Amino acid sequence: MMTQAGFFQDLLQSIFKRSIKLPSLNWLERENREQSLKMLAALVLETKGEASALVYADRFLKRYAETNAEERNGFFMLLAEEYDIDAGQIIRAAQKYGDDKDPQNFCSLMQAAEPPRQELFRRLNSVADGTVGLVRMREALLEEARNNPVLKRVDEDFRHMFRSWFNRGFLVMRTVDWTTPAHILEKIIAYEAVHEIPSWEELRRRLEPKDRRCFAFFHPSMPDEPLIFVEVALLQGMPSKIADVLDPERVAEDPENAKTAVFYSISNCQKGLKGISFGNFLIKQVANDLQKHFPQLEEFATLSPLPGFMRWLKQKEDSGTEPWLGELFKRLSNNGWNLDPQLAEQLKPSVLGLCVRYLFQSERSDGSPNDPVARFHLENGASLERVNWLGDVSARGIGQGAGLMINYRYDLSRLEQNHELYAANKEVIASPSVKALFKETSGSKQSLLFPVSEEFHE
Amino acid sequence: MMTQAGFFQDLLQSIFKRSIKLPSLNWLERENREQSLKMLAALVLETKGEASALVYADRFLKRYAETNAEERNGFFMLLAEEYDIDAGQIIRAAQKYGDDKDPQNFCSLMQAAEPPRQELFRRLNSVADGTVGLVRMREALLEEARNNPVLKRVDEDFRHMFRSWFNRGFLVMRTVDWTTPAHILEKIIAYEAVHEIPSWEELRRRLEPKDRRCFAFFHPSMPDEPLIFVEVALLQGMPSKIADVLDPERVAEDPENAKTAVFYSISNCQKGLKGISFGNFLIKQVANDLQKHFPQLEEFATLSPLPGFMRWLKQKEDSGTEPWLGELFKRLSNNGWNLDPQLAEQLKPSVLGLCVRYLFQSERSDGSPNDPVARFHLENGASLERVNWLGDVSARGIGQGAGLMINYRYDLSRLEQNHELYAANKEVIASPSVKALFKETSGSKQSLLFPVSEEFHE
Amino acid sequence: MMTQAGFFQDLLQSIFKRSIKLPSLNWLERENREQSLKMLAALVLETKGEASALVYADRFLKRYAETNAEERNGFFMLLAEEYDIDAGQIIRAAQKYGDDKDPQNFCSLMQAAEPPRQELFRRLNSVADGTVGLVRMREALLEEARNNPVLKRVDEDFRHMFRSWFNRGFLVMRTVDWTTPAHILEKIIAYEAVHEIPSWEELRRRLEPKDRRCFAFFHPSMPDEPLIFVEVALLQGMPSKIADVLDPERVAEDPENAKTAVFYSISNCQKGLKGISFGNFLIKQVANDLQKHFPQLEEFATLSPLPGFMRWLKQKEDSGTEPWLGELFKRLSNNGWNLDPQLAEQLKPSVLGLCVRYLFQSERSDGSPNDPVARFHLENGASLERVNWLGDVSARGIGQGAGLMINYRYDLSRLEQNHELYAANKEVIASPSVKALFKETSGSKQSLLFPVSEEFHE
Amino acid sequence: MMTQAGFFQDLLQSIFKRSIKLPSLNWLERENREQSLKMLAALVLETKGEASALVYADRFLKRYAETNAEERNGFFMLLAEEYDIDAGQIIRAAQKYGDDKDPQNFCSLMQAAEPPRQELFRRLNSVADGTVGLVRMREALLEEARNNPVLKRVDEDFRHMFRSWFNRGFLVMRTVDWTTPAHILEKIIAYEAVHEIPSWEELRRRLEPKDRRCFAFFHPSMPDEPLIFVEVALLQGMPSKIADVLDPERVAEDPENAKTAVFYSISNCQKGLKGISFGNFLIKQVANDLQKHFPQLEEFATLSPLPGFMRWLKQKEDSGTEPWLGELFKRLSNNGWNLDPQLAEQLKPSVLGLCVRYLFQSERSDGSPNDPVARFHLENGASLERVNWLGDVSARGIGQGAGLMINYRYDLSRLEQNHELYAANKEVIASPSVKALFKETSGSKQSLLFPVSEEFHE
Repeated sequence: MMTQAGFFQDLLQSIFKRSIKLPSLNWLERENREQSLKMLAALVLETKGEASALVYADRFLKRYAETNAEERNGFFMLLAEEYDIDAGQIIRAAQKYGDDKDPQNFCSLMQAAEPPRQELFRRLNSVADGTVGLVRMREALLEEARNNPVLKRVDEDFRHMFRSWFNRGFLVMRTVDWTTPAHILEKIIAYEAVHEIPSWEELRRRLEPKDRRCFAFFHPSMPDEPLIFVEVALLQGMPSKIADVLDPERVAEDPENAKTAVFYSISNCQKGLKGISFGNFLIKQVANDLQKHFPQLEEFATLSPLPGFMRWLKQKEDSGTEPWLGELFKRLSNNGWNLDPQLAEQLKPSVLGLCVRYLFQSERSDGSPNDPVARFHLENGASLERVNWLGDVSARGIGQGAGLMINYRYDLSRLEQNHELYAANKEVIASPSVKALFKETSGSKQSLLFPVSEEFHE
Repeated sequence: MMTQAGFFQDLLQSIFKRSIKLPSLNWLERENREQSLKMLAALVLETKGEASALVYADRFLKRYAETNAEERNGFFMLLAEEYDIDAGQIIRAAQKYGDDKDPQNFCSLMQAAEPPRQELFRRLNSVADGTVGLVRMREALLEEARNNPVLKRVDEDFRHMFRSWFNRGFLVMRTVDWTTPAHILEKIIAYEAVHEIPSWEELRRRLEPKDRRCFAFFHPSMPDEPLIFVEVALLQGMPSKIADVLDPERVAEDPENAKTAVFYSISNCQKGLKGISFGNFLIKQVANDLQKHFPQLEEFATLSPLPGFMRWLKQKEDSGTEPWLGELFKRLSNNGWNLDPQLAEQLKPSVLGLCVRYLFQSERSDGSPNDPVARFHLENGASLERVNWLGDVSARGIGQGAGLMINYRYDLSRLEQNHELYAANKEVIASPSVKALFKETSGSKQSLLFPVSEEFHE
Repeated sequence: MMTQAGFFQDLLQSIFKRSIKLPSLNWLERENREQSLKMLAALVLETKGEASALVYADRFLKRYAETNAEERNGFFMLLAEEYDIDAGQIIRAAQKYGDDKDPQNFCSLMQAAEPPRQELFRRLNSVADGTVGLVRMREALLEEARNNPVLKRVDEDFRHMFRSWFNRGFLVMRTVDWTTPAHILEKIIAYEAVHEIPSWEELRRRLEPKDRRCFAFFHPSMPDEPLIFVEVALLQGMPSKIADVLDPERVAEDPENAKTAVFYSISNCQKGLKGISFGNFLIKQVANDLQKHFPQLEEFATLSPLPGFMRWLKQKEDSGTEPWLGELFKRLSNNGWNLDPQLAEQLKPSVLGLCVRYLFQSERSDGSPNDPVARFHLENGASLERVNWLGDVSARGIGQGAGLMINYRYDLSRLEQNHELYAANKEVIASPSVKALFKETSGSKQSLLFPVSEEFHE
Repeated sequence: MMTQAGFFQDLLQSIFKRSIKLPSLNWLERENREQSLKMLAALVLETKGEASALVYADRFLKRYAETNAEERNGFFMLLAEEYDIDAGQIIRAAQKYGDDKDPQNFCSLMQAAEPPRQELFRRLNSVADGTVGLVRMREALLEEARNNPVLKRVDEDFRHMFRSWFNRGFLVMRTVDWTTPAHILEKIIAYEAVHEIPSWEELRRRLEPKDRRCFAFFHPSMPDEPLIFVEVALLQGMPSKIADVLDPERVAEDPENAKTAVFYSISNCQKGLKGISFGNFLIKQVANDLQKHFPQLEEFATLSPLPGFMRWLKQKEDSGTEPWLGELFKRLSNNGWNLDPQLAEQLKPSVLGLCVRYLFQSERSDGSPNDPVARFHLENGASLERVNWLGDVSARGIGQGAGLMINYRYDLSRLEQNHELYAANKEVIASPSVKALFKETSGSKQSLLFPVSEEFHE
């Protein structure tokens, strides 16, 4: 009740509108009616007037929005080839700077070493919706770069600019709830990437109950677009099944009595911001804020999928090095195995054993865990707390992770220490019980893994 | 009355607070109690955890705030020397890229060519008040670099980062008026650089009357700090004397009847943002917004000082090439010449002649006008409309500009065209009357300039 | 972009929360655990401490929220009987005041003449959600008063208080659009009373397209509850069919080119505010605001139902005074008559004739039009512009208004004049064409009305 | 950081502007150009159109703003005489209602018993700035009513309306600090009634230091006008001298370590709201909010003046019942007695004794304490904690209260209980030490009071 932010709130109203008035350029219009992206990009960069550059930038972005894939890709190649650096020029400038560290020589070298497309991006960013436009542009570029590695050079510049613009210091965390504007909420529906939100009713069940929370990062220049969001349930303990968390029939509990805050869904929203990491900061800030509001909270944990497990198993099986996996994989690939309690019970020890192997034994060149979600949370300093059998029996859960779900624990007092240990030697910090499971299964691989194979063949 | 910005206003409240919760690093504290800036900078850059980096960055900025000049300069030299690029490495990377434009080679080159201090700045920017801290840091650096050119290399990186962060697209224009928070208003008092504001009463006279306006640019990460502001008077015509504009006795007019919007004071607020231009955009946006609100406005103009005129005259006189200037300069340097109407009338033709010469005949290597204010407005596309005799008879006005004031006209429909002409060949766009004055005086220099010299010697 | 309302926006944040901290009354708790509404009401009124009164008021409202109908009605009767005025006391006080207009005598009379329940209502209003609570209470009271006229005395006091609290000066108009918080939007869905909104998709079609607008009045003490809202379509001309307006396939038009603003749905939201009129002010303010934003708008009109027409026809038919109506009413009551073009065409002249008779010939004691919607718009100063055959062929439209819809025109320059004329002598201001239709049909009633009855019997 | 109030904040922006568009009434203008207040008031009340009433109300308020005292008082008399109730009509209506409690009879009686000026006030309140206008009008009325008791009848109606409109439930508490808009701050300067604020620098010393707070109540319809505000110092203990609290040289302390919150100045701002109490609620809400933010706070207390003490002493002395008071009063009336330590020490016991007598022994008909400030705080449930000798040695402090200041303690857990005790039998709740002082002095009046009188005459 003692806020003091009035004046500053107004600032964002202005940001939101950011309708930079553009001078009418009638005298230019006549000659330049049908400009290509190429011509407009040149005008944006070459015009000496900053305001003219704005006008051209605005026109460029409007023009870009109307292009087809072919024209777009032509423009991307232009960026890669003609707006590139000149290696020879850099060498000459670097030699000169090596000889004499005169500031002017430094400037010349810096200038030579910056691809001109970076200045183009900066100028395009100056106009209304410029930031969104560039994020969308990179999204298209990333798509195209999968088939055309040359474009990765352009992407490198995008990444460089975006790391600067989407600096943690510029991001804003916002609560998303049932009082949030509808046009933001429909984006939550659209961007939810882990547990689909099929209707406004389901959205409401995730946002409105008193034991649910949702938080998102926004950037002041893209106020209509969440960058990343996390959904939280305030519970009595660490859940083992996602269906319990999302049960439409459950009765909301009093958050003042909750003991565990569970991050059960984290979704990146902007493909064009790939590689610019926010999740780390978001989870930690949310955990800190929740702890402050609900001092009685005892633990923070996730209920996370194991998205790469079945793919990994498939590769293992394809490789043929462990023949018994064939039968196991087959069983796991059959629809509905999880509905047969006896069968599920038979599969359990083998699957759990493979799961910990998958989590602990890296097969990556950088030595980090095979699973992308595991990498994310361990990198954040979380620890591997528990493996949950039949935690997610949705089609996706069974198909990608054999129904397994993982609890990663965020112990606020140990995050940094864990993180440093992980960063130093990729040590997977895990709870005693998970460690025990791993020791057990790796110690007696033969007997533990798939001990029930005979039955399958009977 | 039909606003829709509610949600977004909240965003800024969050920005304003931007209190990124930092994990407690007790386990680190023990070993690092007395860290030097050098050691902390290394930790900021080298730690692998992003959150740890935040902690170190926060500690670095707090530590920096306590340093004395010596330690600060030591740190600046460290930035210049140890966080510099390695020319040899760049050359090798550039050669490799020249041979094979593989994206990985591109990345390596880009990495080699970016001074590590840039990443340091980005990381420092991630914490609360990081942006302000860096702007203050550059302010100190610029001061120091005047005596230590090596530091200009560091400044170049600051400038590079700031151009990106203070991109026009991220700026927010705000009205400043008598309902603005007091802590912002006291900064307007402090930063006013043209016509001093000696009291809250004078501030009120500039902000509250219905025919006065003030606009400022802000950045979301520095919401308490205006970047630049402009003061505007809505009048019946172009004023010739600043005393009329600021007259405490004048009666405010109805802005709905105003014909001329006069920009009578523009002040940059942040020395640490030197070279990052905002004024151009601010004036144009203000002009456009005013035109929209008051469609009856017929012209936009400044009432500007001529700050370099007397300095230029002094140089001229010192050079001895035009001996008659000695006497003139002496007269103009005597206090109170403007109070003697007869004397002032005698001096007028010579001074006006020298004034247009000063404005039209560049003595700079880049061919642009000698006067910095003239360069600013002409660069913006304004035109030189009128020279006002005894326009500013304050001590500063007489001392710097011989009491002259200039009206520059902002003709919204011609700004871009003027700008292009100016940018192309430094053509000084001027009104017919000013041109006529220039022709007249330059055509018959002897007779026109100082025709009254005899009298002076009698 | 030049807003200045920051500080004041904060005010409402506080209003919104309005969480008046209540002192803990442990020393009271002991004795008063199971209080009846009656006992609590007495405590609210009789306690001498204002803060204690707040505590009791809060407890009363919480207790009230848990009551069943029986207890509630008991309490209403208590309000009617025991918190009533004392006629004898008033007479004595009035006599005393009649004798001596001493201010003290005036006060005594005023006090005697105010039912004590008014003070109870004021005190209940002092706590968080008090205003909403009282509006809900009156809603229940109105329901009950239909069977228990004694309660109308209590309602009279509610009405008196609400007229003061919901004074036009305290209301706030707000745009409702797709950026409005979801919990407000779901109330728009719930409260739409004219043309149902069956889904979020339909809601979006009413709010998001650029040629649609929605405006609502709110009260600062009930910020989550719209009081009344109006839906507007910006069109090329006055529409004749609601289906055209709501067509999901239609393409949104540029509002800058719209010629007609059509109010196609107006819904009161709070049954507890019955008799406190807002619609008048809302329509006029919306019309004025739209005119200001879109100066090219040429006319403002409604597309309104004729909700009482079929009921009126039924009464006419029941009365038996015009026997031919029997057959007509039977036809109109048959489902699907409107789908038979020939039949519809046959019915048209009779129905139109009856319609204008219904609109022009009052059968009410106050002489105002029979139709409630007609009364509302004519009272506002609108004029009856056009009768639209088969304007609303939904089940409700056919069932209540024989498919007819009316355009009422809001001519901003004539509203007040029309209103005065209407208020003075209930003159129905109508367009020449509607007047002509009325003259025509009333002049030759026999021939015009139902000329096709023979065919029906063949 | 988890706010959710966005939408609602917008509401107030609208309130703030509350620019109800008024239809142009050209057709009325012609006839009504030179309307008197009397004629306009009649038009406001008698017009049947609500919108027309708005137009007349707006015109009335503009016209009122231009009136001179004579015209204004004429209008006040009109309100008193011609817009009064008709006692005879009330008697008839009351008799009818006494005979038959029919709701219609109830309505008739209610209508008869409401002076028509109340409806006039309601209608005037409907337009922009109507609320402020009416508060100002009552201010003028109160001034005039001192000489003209007839007007107290009108004031009674104002008071009745304002009690309803300025209901606690409609008020908003706001922090006032150095980020508050300047136009609000200048009102804090203007309205400070206890310890004058002579400059913006002094204002800043009261608002900006981290151990100072200021809170005010606002009403949504008067967002530019504080209703009441309280200044708070967060200290290590209960202060005894106001000069310590306001010392410009003092160093601000960390509020996280404060033990005592001191309310050292409370000012009502609106004379037109006389008799509508807010202070009670404000202090309690501030105390509760502070306790929540700073849980370590151990006590809440005031440092209050004793404004009526010297006046009371004068009356005592004038009455001649206690002759020795003459000499004492003379001494206390001499400028600078407090600067003579020996004299002050001599006076101390007598003055303290008289002080507690003044505080404890009521001479009022209602039995409440003689001092208005004491009445206010004791009524709130505070207790009399300490009498401070030479607590306020400013001219006003010496002149009104003999330099004494009082600490009243707000014990949140006992406020209501204290209040009830006070309300029931005017019991002055006091600390043991003050009680002891009172017992001591009242037990041995002769010896204790003025024991040093001999010295005075020597």
